[in-house]
Amino acid sequence: MRVSVIGGGVIDRETADVARRVGRELAERGHTVVCGGLGGVMGAVCEGADEAGGDTIGIVPGPDRAAANEYVDTAIATGMGNARNVLVVLNGEAAIAIDGSTGTLSEIGHALDFGRPVAGIDTHEIEGVEAVASATAAVDHVESAVESQ
Amino acid sequence: MRVSVIGGGVIDRETADVARRVGRELAERGHTVVCGGLGGVMGAVCEGADEAGGDTIGIVPGPDRAAANEYVDTAIATGMGNARNVLVVLNGEAAIAIDGSTGTLSEIGHALDFGRPVAGIDTHEIEGVEAVASATAAVDHVESAVESQ
Amino acid sequence: MRVSVIGGGVIDRETADVARRVGRELAERGHTVVCGGLGGVMGAVCEGADEAGGDTIGIVPGPDRAAANEYVDTAIATGMGNARNVLVVLNGEAAIAIDGSTGTLSEIGHALDFGRPVAGIDTHEIEGVEAVASATAAVDHVESAVESQ
Amino acid sequence: MRVSVIGGGVIDRETADVARRVGRELAERGHTVVCGGLGGVMGAVCEGADEAGGDTIGIVPGPDRAAANEYVDTAIATGMGNARNVLVVLNGEAAIAIDGSTGTLSEIGHALDFGRPVAGIDTHEIEGVEAVASATAAVDHVESAVESQ
Repeated sequence: MRVSVIGGGVIDRETADVARRVGRELAERGHTVVCGGLGGVMGAVCEGADEAGGDTIGIVPGPDRAAANEYVDTAIATGMGNARNVLVVLNGEAAIAIDGSTGTLSEIGHALDFGRPVAGIDTHEIEGVEAVASATAAVDHVESAVESQ
Repeated sequence: MRVSVIGGGVIDRETADVARRVGRELAERGHTVVCGGLGGVMGAVCEGADEAGGDTIGIVPGPDRAAANEYVDTAIATGMGNARNVLVVLNGEAAIAIDGSTGTLSEIGHALDFGRPVAGIDTHEIEGVEAVASATAAVDHVESAVESQ
Repeated sequence: MRVSVIGGGVIDRETADVARRVGRELAERGHTVVCGGLGGVMGAVCEGADEAGGDTIGIVPGPDRAAANEYVDTAIATGMGNARNVLVVLNGEAAIAIDGSTGTLSEIGHALDFGRPVAGIDTHEIEGVEAVASATAAVDHVESAVESQ
Repeated sequence: MRVSVIGGGVIDRETADVARRVGRELAERGHTVVCGGLGGVMGAVCEGADEAGGDTIGIVPGPDRAAANEYVDTAIATGMGNARNVLVVLNGEAAIAIDGSTGTLSEIGHALDFGRPVAGIDTHEIEGVEAVASATAAVDHVESAVESQ
């Protein structure tokens, strides 16, 4: 399946490690990463997926898809600014939120609004977001939540 | 100024009263209400603004602006579904959230992401959202927050 | 009713005169002008509507509604770039195209796709666009076409 | 490179043959097809690309990417209706228009507005659209036009 991975555009090393592990874990289990295509959590999750031979889709806010990070396999330009956040979560069966600020909050809102299961690692505490402590637990959660839908 | 009022599409009587008071208060102070144009908080806030002779803008998700509630003065159709949430908060200088669920959460995220001050009445507890207890306090907050920007 | 007026962003004096006359004619007959909110045909049609005391809505491509020309009564910011062209024609019952280049062509396509009657003055020759020679003829055409729908 | 292929959603057998040949030709030369993801020209061009082992991206108007035709490799859901037309042409370096009606016209407008070279087969006669008679000529044109940019 596809899993949207959302999170901060500017992150510390520890958060990058978590995001990379989420990317690897998703790829190893055969899932495709969908993200906003830029840096921070977006870059790290794509790097992790790439290391494990997985596929990545990056939906960028600007009109030029060359803005996507180097680990994005399929970049989609929108030129629609923050409205692209809607597309990021619409195009996954579930979402994993890692860290992140207000943009991530908007994506969590849209994901829940679309009925997508959401796992969260060190992110906003929101009813409906399953707080987990590791990449493995995050992928476990979205897999079982999608299966039981 | 324009103030985006966001909140649940299906609400109880008490929440409707609050939304109506917010609409009246905004109108009495000369502000224009921007909202998602449909029912619930959107309908009640427009009704309140209308009672006080204020202006209202309703940005609806579907392609037909006739979907707007009867108290909307200027209806804007988008046909863009939830991406219209972005436009609702982009078109106000500040936002007031009343009650609400996941759609409102996405709007709070976008509002904060655009740097808009947000006051909240019985809504999501989010860092950056000023929790207030009354319509008057909500309008006071967004007025002073915008002024001090 | 609302009539979308579309056309070039950079125009000569003669085209500006035509656009101004279209704005006046629409306002005198009680119609609201919807346009892309910027300059050229958009600015001139709003100026004409304003002179005749009419209402104008300007839907701008950028995230800041202050980009709207001074004759726009209700400015709507989108931050969605050219996707705002869709909203310009979706929000009128009919469209009048004046001069214009590729952006106007996209709006003619969307207008026809939404089933909107379109009158054209010195613009693209497209099947479905009624070529007319004056502001009066343009407004006559869209009025009668909408009435007979 | 990526080439957006646009055209009618309901087409006759002859047009389907042309679209399939365009898809094959693009795939054989190593290009990726971007299209609106549904049927008609969109379905036929993807089928042709698929026969030749090429990649296809389908950007659909609705919120469910399962609406994409069976030959789409990467489907992107938008839920934005006709605003997705903008994304279809934004995500190619050039466009080939085949047959088509008003939706195709809007895409030609947006493509030209973004400065994309456009080749047309039995489609709207528009200044800036290079009318060609075959799939080979269409792909030749967009290749040389992009190269000389």
